[in-house]
Amino acid sequence: MRADQTDVLKRLSYIEGHLNGVRKMIEADQYCVDVLRQTYAVRKAIEKMEALILEQHLHTCVPEGIKEGREDAVINELMQLYNLAGNR
Amino acid sequence: MRADQTDVLKRLSYIEGHLNGVRKMIEADQYCVDVLRQTYAVRKAIEKMEALILEQHLHTCVPEGIKEGREDAVINELMQLYNLAGNR
Amino acid sequence: MRADQTDVLKRLSYIEGHLNGVRKMIEADQYCVDVLRQTYAVRKAIEKMEALILEQHLHTCVPEGIKEGREDAVINELMQLYNLAGNR
Amino acid sequence: MRADQTDVLKRLSYIEGHLNGVRKMIEADQYCVDVLRQTYAVRKAIEKMEALILEQHLHTCVPEGIKEGREDAVINELMQLYNLAGNR
Repeated sequence: MRADQTDVLKRLSYIEGHLNGVRKMIEADQYCVDVLRQTYAVRKAIEKMEALILEQHLHTCVPEGIKEGREDAVINELMQLYNLAGNR
Repeated sequence: MRADQTDVLKRLSYIEGHLNGVRKMIEADQYCVDVLRQTYAVRKAIEKMEALILEQHLHTCVPEGIKEGREDAVINELMQLYNLAGNR
Repeated sequence: MRADQTDVLKRLSYIEGHLNGVRKMIEADQYCVDVLRQTYAVRKAIEKMEALILEQHLHTCVPEGIKEGREDAVINELMQLYNLAGNR
Repeated sequence: MRADQTDVLKRLSYIEGHLNGVRKMIEADQYCVDVLRQTYAVRKAIEKMEALILEQHLHTCVPEGIKEGREDAVINELMQLYNLAGNR
C-alpha cells in the first residue's frame, strides 16, 4: 500500500467515525441545528479527502496521460470532475 | 420515533453503505477518478439528508421560536447554518 | 431608501467594479489563472451580498408571514432558496 | 482576438446585463426572494464562464507546462484554483 493511500484511508476512518456520531445524535433525537453542524463538518472532511485524491491524480495519471498523447481524454475527465465537485 | 426521523435514518444508512463502497474502492486501489465520482455522490446524498433535516427544523422549531418571542436567536441560527452549508 | 438597502447597493457597486476589472483582464488577454482568481472573488462578493439580503428577509418577511398564518408558503420559499443557493 | 476569448466576453456581457437587472430590482425595492433568485442565476452564469476559461487553460497552458518540465508549478496552481472554486 502506498503512503498516500494510507493517508486517504486514515481520513476515511475519521469520516466514518464522525458519521457514526451523527447517527447517535439523530437516534437520540438531538437538536436539528446541532446535527446539521456535524453533517456540514462531515462534508468538509470528505472535501479534504477528495482534494488529497485529486492532488495525487494530478501528480501521477495526468502528466503520464499527457506525455502518452491521451491529452484530450485526461482533460475531459478533469472537467467532468470539476463540474461534479461544484454540483454544476 | 417520528416518521420523519425514520426517513432521515434511512438516508443515513444509504450514505454509510455508499461510503463503505468508497472504502473498498480505495483499498482495491481503483482509478482515482472513479473514487472521486463516488465521493461526490456521497456528499450529494448528505446534502439531501441535510435538506430534509432543515425542512423539519423550519416547520417546527422556527415558527415555535418566533411565536415564543425568540425570533433573533432563531434567525441568527439560520444564518449560521446558511453560511456553514455554503462553506462561507 | 432604507439603510440596509443602501448597504446592499454599495456592495453591488463594488461587485460591478470588480467585474469590470475582470473584463479588462480578459480583453488584455491576461493569464487565465489570474482571471479565475478574480471571478472566484466576484462570486464570493455576490454571496456576501446575498447573505445580507437573506438576513433582512429572515428578520422581516419571515416572522411577519408566520404570524399572519402563511407559514407553509414562507417555509417552502426558504427551502427553494436554500436549494438554489447550493446548486442543489 | 481568439475565438474562445470572444465566447468568454459574450458570456461576460450577459452577466453584466443580468447584474444590471438585479440593480434595478433592488432600487425598485422588489421582493427579496425574487432578487436572490436572480443573484443565484448570476453566480451560476459566472461559474459557466469560469468552466470555459478553465477548459481553455487545461487544453493549452497545462499540457505546455508539463511538457516543458514545469509540472509541479502547473499542478499546484490547479489545486489552488480547485480549492478557491469550492470556497475550500
